[in-house]
Amino acid sequence: MKTRERILETSLQLFNENGEPHVTTNHIADEMDISPGNLYYHFRNKDEIVYFLFLRFEHQMQGALEAPTSRALNMEDMWLYLHLVFECIWQYRFLYRDLDNILSRNKKLRVRFRRILERKIQTSITICNGLVVAGIMQANREEIEALANNISVIATYWLNFESIREHHGNEGSYLGHGVYQVMTLVSPYLTGDMRKLLYKLSHDYLD
Amino acid sequence: MKTRERILETSLQLFNENGEPHVTTNHIADEMDISPGNLYYHFRNKDEIVYFLFLRFEHQMQGALEAPTSRALNMEDMWLYLHLVFECIWQYRFLYRDLDNILSRNKKLRVRFRRILERKIQTSITICNGLVVAGIMQANREEIEALANNISVIATYWLNFESIREHHGNEGSYLGHGVYQVMTLVSPYLTGDMRKLLYKLSHDYLD
Repeated sequence: MKTRERILETSLQLFNENGEPHVTTNHIADEMDISPGNLYYHFRNKDEIVYFLFLRFEHQMQGALEAPTSRALNMEDMWLYLHLVFECIWQYRFLYRDLDNILSRNKKLRVRFRRILERKIQTSITICNGLVVAGIMQANREEIEALANNISVIATYWLNFESIREHHGNEGSYLGHGVYQVMTLVSPYLTGDMRKLLYKLSHDYLD
Repeated sequence: MKTRERILETSLQLFNENGEPHVTTNHIADEMDISPGNLYYHFRNKDEIVYFLFLRFEHQMQGALEAPTSRALNMEDMWLYLHLVFECIWQYRFLYRDLDNILSRNKKLRVRFRRILERKIQTSITICNGLVVAGIMQANREEIEALANNISVIATYWLNFESIREHHGNEGSYLGHGVYQVMTLVSPYLTGDMRKLLYKLSHDYLD
């Protein structure tokens, strides 16, 4: 692996483990057993490392936010969508844990993060509309808009909420509980049998 | 007004307007036209000011989180509860805007904030249970638990969500939209006419 790549990988790992504010470029160089000078040859400062990690996060999240448009939607699309979103958040959890801090330090990231949030709301609306067309969901335009907002808030802040409550789980329990919480938002709008099926599936997923 | 009291009031105002990280004790002294020495006579540092403001916030929030227990509950209890919670968050919005930052700097506040969060979840459960008993709501234990978690996440992070989206409203629009979003969580579990009534009320509130 190239040094530049190793710096990004090591930084991501240290940021996720210790929180971005507590990690310095010296820590990163130490962990890799390279000189600080070598690190500065590749990145001017820590903010530049954060910036390039953000671009990777953004790329992965954009993939997760692509709702299928060429066919009829079903509940699995909603599951897959949520699973990919929560997985991406977990992989870049340092960003979400200190979101206000990181975004207030960097206007460019703030604008890009806002775009991701708007896209998240839009994709949620698209999927819900698809489920309505498929006869799986019953909800009017206003209900879907409010639902999409709530889905986005829960997906964005579930990690911080759990962290304040000192529920420090592993990736599996975080994904399971996060997806379950969002599914309980969607569930009341599902028609008859689908609601029961979701209830059963949520439980299997949670265990 | 005593100097100590004026320092707290001025700090709260400056924190809310500019964000707590961007306000120094010098700014506060300047704004009040007193010497930094005079300020330090009352508070050792900015964190101590934050701490005492937190105690006020906590006191006010505890008041909001007291669900009536001596009588049958109705939908107005839910409205009033949400209204008081969102109002308290607005009054101490500096805290919520940099929550991760402020709580990571101060372990004592983190523990106290966690207690408030647990209490918020508990009060939401109590009110939902009361509505079920009153025949206004239909939901089982699990649905209520998931609902109470979602209510707490939305109430806690709605301000940050709106702020990232650059929806910088005034107190009225923040309260209106926040309470509306939470009400859309509750609405699907309400029985027949109550759901329609809530739908109408939410709209009046939102306008």
